[in-house]
This record gives sequence, structure tokens and C-alpha cells, in this order.
Amino acid sequence: MALHFSGNMMEHNLFVLVDLLGTLAFAVSGALAAEQKRLDLFGVLAISYLTACGGGVIRDLCIGALPPVGISDWRYLATSALASAIAIWARPMIDHLKQPIIFFDSLGLGFFAVVGAHKALGFGHNIEVAILLGMVTAVGGGVARDVVLNRVPIILEKEIYAVAALVGAAIQVLGQRMDWTLTLTPWFGALICFAIRTLALHYSWGLPVIRRSDAAQ
Amino acid sequence: MALHFSGNMMEHNLFVLVDLLGTLAFAVSGALAAEQKRLDLFGVLAISYLTACGGGVIRDLCIGALPPVGISDWRYLATSALASAIAIWARPMIDHLKQPIIFFDSLGLGFFAVVGAHKALGFGHNIEVAILLGMVTAVGGGVARDVVLNRVPIILEKEIYAVAALVGAAIQVLGQRMDWTLTLTPWFGALICFAIRTLALHYSWGLPVIRRSDAAQ
Amino acid sequence: MALHFSGNMMEHNLFVLVDLLGTLAFAVSGALAAEQKRLDLFGVLAISYLTACGGGVIRDLCIGALPPVGISDWRYLATSALASAIAIWARPMIDHLKQPIIFFDSLGLGFFAVVGAHKALGFGHNIEVAILLGMVTAVGGGVARDVVLNRVPIILEKEIYAVAALVGAAIQVLGQRMDWTLTLTPWFGALICFAIRTLALHYSWGLPVIRRSDAAQ
Repeated sequence: MALHFSGNMMEHNLFVLVDLLGTLAFAVSGALAAEQKRLDLFGVLAISYLTACGGGVIRDLCIGALPPVGISDWRYLATSALASAIAIWARPMIDHLKQPIIFFDSLGLGFFAVVGAHKALGFGHNIEVAILLGMVTAVGGGVARDVVLNRVPIILEKEIYAVAALVGAAIQVLGQRMDWTLTLTPWFGALICFAIRTLALHYSWGLPVIRRSDAAQ
Repeated sequence: MALHFSGNMMEHNLFVLVDLLGTLAFAVSGALAAEQKRLDLFGVLAISYLTACGGGVIRDLCIGALPPVGISDWRYLATSALASAIAIWARPMIDHLKQPIIFFDSLGLGFFAVVGAHKALGFGHNIEVAILLGMVTAVGGGVARDVVLNRVPIILEKEIYAVAALVGAAIQVLGQRMDWTLTLTPWFGALICFAIRTLALHYSWGLPVIRRSDAAQ
Repeated sequence: MALHFSGNMMEHNLFVLVDLLGTLAFAVSGALAAEQKRLDLFGVLAISYLTACGGGVIRDLCIGALPPVGISDWRYLATSALASAIAIWARPMIDHLKQPIIFFDSLGLGFFAVVGAHKALGFGHNIEVAILLGMVTAVGGGVARDVVLNRVPIILEKEIYAVAALVGAAIQVLGQRMDWTLTLTPWFGALICFAIRTLALHYSWGLPVIRRSDAAQ
């Protein structure tokens, strides 16, 4: 796998680390959402895993990286289980973070955008595929979570979200094309994505909504 | 790509043209639905793109055409952006068409059914795969749109819809097996599909609904 | 296909039989759910087919068995059509079974878990992939049905369900690793899964629900 993904083992390890950090962040976010819906223990773990790995599975299906790494590498499932445990038993700790779901979402967003873009490039796909699938890696799990929990996906209604992931993925692609230091590029891309998302939340930045007088269907 | 898809470049170009016309039609339909839900600018573009390319992505995943052409070929994304712009800024023009969402849906339905069936045959799959995936190409994006927007898919409740796509896909498969003129077959299949759908709407044709006295779950 | 799937034709036939039995069970379950939603004839067939084949299609996409067997092998579609006919015209017979949807779900659950695990192993994937995709094969169709019909998936809220499929898939994997008689292993795994599910229903076994005072979102 490492050989397909990247010729450089140290670089490969860096991206796995970033990917697992993003997985942890999204898995906590998913587990908290599942708890709020009063799901049982399995439901919490399943939604946590879906939120964390759903975007990556879609990415891997699209680039032909089969089976998807979220399914074949035990560390992703284990990370989801850990996150569920944190969300259940260390909840008081998490409660100190304001709006915990959104915080963990923002953190994972940046990590996943750069990892997704990097992996798509590593499989030899073009810039458009890398940027789009970087964004899909980042937002896919959250959309899957919302669809399964019967909510209109949060990314379609609220503050700038997917656009931040798009920027993060684009920075990663740009960095690899420009031969920036590969060790720093992903942290930089993830940081910018996180910053955009957090500022958007804080200042309620949003894209314009098209308002019409016609009634909703 | 052209070589896998078809040995004949002119024929290939014809199908890309038909595919982009269908993409435009569905993208406008998706953008209008997103506007009605009061989504922001990104939401309108995302739902437009999902409606236009969702069915084709499912088809490409199933036949192993990776990455899906809707993601790797910039013209599909550009067409969705164009359609979103039309839906937002040229809306008064569109309003002159009665029931615009449904009209654009019907138009795209026929185009996508024939393109999907043709592509599946081109990848060497059997008749069943071609007809089913032709229908999925045509209805998949609309189902994805409705699922994401939290509605029961329109195709499951209303007038004859997927059946029209099935007929369109079957005509394309039949035409290729019978060696009909390949330049005319897709237009013929798409036209029949559009006609069935439009007549079904006009005369409220529908398939029988199984009514029971037992309460819904 | 048989050669990839298994070197032994008799064993292959056994798994196809078990798979078609599961397909019939899930297809009846799906058709009944669609009827309750007052869908039309096409809607009943589509939901029946989606419930029966959705999990297997996800499995096949993930292991690279393209096109998914549920789409390329006519027997799966024919079985769904048969099940829809049964659900519509032999309904009085089915009504004698208490809670028919859940009964057929439980039956299919066990069959699909063992078939899914067996097929993933046959494609050379590891134990985790086999167990997870065995479970996904079993629960994926039902989740797809619930998502499309706009319900929170039943497996996330109710009695032990996916966990039973997990156990069934694990028994199949264990059996193949331990060289148990391949003719008996799938029936054993499916039986244990069905038993767990049925007992869970009867005694209202459930996993603990995490209750909090914070309001649902």
C-alpha cells in the first residue's frame, strides 16, 4: 500500500498520522451527534465510524483504492471505538468545549482535505479529481451522518464549511505541484482550512442565500 | 478514454454532447430545487452538481470506469456552475416554463438513459447491466438530490418516471444490438423517454398504487 | 466469476443458493415497507430490489467485484420481482406471520452476513474486511431502504440487529480459517445470527442507550 500511496515511507507515515487525527476528530463529532439522537451503543459506534470514514470510503471507491482503507486498516475502526468511548465516558471533559460537535468537525475538516487531495494525486489523478475528492473526503462523512440521521446536511445550510475544505485541498495540490516542503504543506493546508472555518463560525460568515418569494416545495 | 469508450471518435463526441445536454438539464433542475430549500450559493452549486452527476458517478463506480467522468472531466463541473448561474440570474426566463424543475428533469432523463446504457455496453457488460445502469444514470442524481434534501424520492411516488428511463435505455441497447444508425438511436431513445414522461405528466398516468387498510409504520 | 469467487463449483452453488434465499427474504421485507408507504408498483419493486441488493452492491464496490452481482445476474432482479408479487398478491398469507417485515429481515440478515463474509475472503481480503463487509452486506440494504424512505435506520434505534449480523459473519470467517466443513458453516452462522436476532426481539434485548439531559438537536 505504502508503495502505491507514496514512495517515501516517512512522508507516508506523516499522512497516516494526519489521517488518524482527522479520524479521531470526526469520530468524536459523530459520536456526540448520535448520542443526541438517543441511539444505542452500537448506533453511537456506527455513526461515529460512518462520520469518520464515510468520506474516505467514497474517495477510495472513486480512485480505485480497493478495499477502502477505512475498512481494511484496523486503526480506523479502533480510532472510532476510542472516540465513542471518549464521547460517552469523558463527556464532562468535552462539555467544557463550546459547541463540541462543530469544533471537532472543523479540526477534522482540514486534516481530511489535505489527506484526500494527497492520496488522489498519489494514485495519478488530475488536479480537479484531487481537489474535489479532497473536499469529498472532508465533508462526505458528515453528509452521510446527516443523511442517515435524517437531517438536511449541515454543510448546505450553514456558515462556510465545504469551501474551507476546498481551500485546504487546493493548498495541498498547489504545494505538491510547486514542490513545497512536503512535511509542512499538509499542516499549512489544514491550518488555513481550520482558520477559515473557525473565523466563519465566529463572525457568522456565510455565502449569500438566494431568497425568493415562491413557496418551498 | 475515448478508446475504451468507443473506437469511433465522432460517435464518442456525439455521446459527450448528449451527456452534457443532459447534465445541463439536470443541473438546472437541481439548482432550482436547492433554491426552493433556501440553501446558500455553495448549496445550490453542490445540489446542482449532485443532481447532474450523481447518477453517472454510481454508473461509473459499478462498471469500473474510475475515476467517474463527472469528477475527472472539468466540463461536467463547469456545466453545473453554468446551470446554477442560469437558475439564479436568468430565473425570470425559466419561470416562463411551467413547472420548470419537472421539465428539465424530463429532458435530462432521456439523455442520461441512452448515454448510461451506451457506456455500460462499451465497457463490455451485459444487456441487463446496460439497461439497469442506463436507468440508474437517469434517475440516480434525482434520488440523491431528494435523499440529501430529506424528501422521499419523487420517482417513487409520482407519475411514470423511472419506467420512461428504462424504455429509453432499452431502445439504446436494442439499437446497438440491431446495428441501427448510431447517430440516430440515442436521439430516438431520448425522445421516446421524454415523450412517455411528458404524456404521463399531462394525462396523470401512473402505475397502480397498492392500497391497504393497515396503518403506515 | 465462479473461479474468482471459489475454486469449488459445488461450494459456489451453495453460496448462490443461500444468497438468493436471503435476497427473497429481504425483498419481501422491502416490498412490504414500500406498500406501507403507499408507493406505486414501480416504487414497491424498486424498494424491494434496493433492500435486497443494496448491501451486496456496496460490498462488491468495496472489494472490486465489478459490476456488482446484484446488477449483472438476472436472478437477483427476478427474485425481487417474485418477492414483490408475493407481497402484493399473497399478502393475506404473509399477514398470518406476526410482524412480517421484521421476520423476513431476520431471515435475510443471517444469510447475507455469511455470504458477504465468504465473498470478501474469496477476493483475498483480510479478516476485518470480511467481517465488516459481511455485516454491511446484511444491513446495508435495510439502511438504504430506510434512508430512501426518509426514516432513521431501524438498526440504529432498536433491538440488537447489526450485532447479530456481525456474529454471523465472524462465525463464517472463523469457520473458513479453522477449515470447518464448508457446507455446514454458513447454515450454522446464519442460524446463530437469526437466533440472536429473534431472541433479542422476543425478550426486547437491547444495547444500553446513552441518556443525557441535553436536548436533541
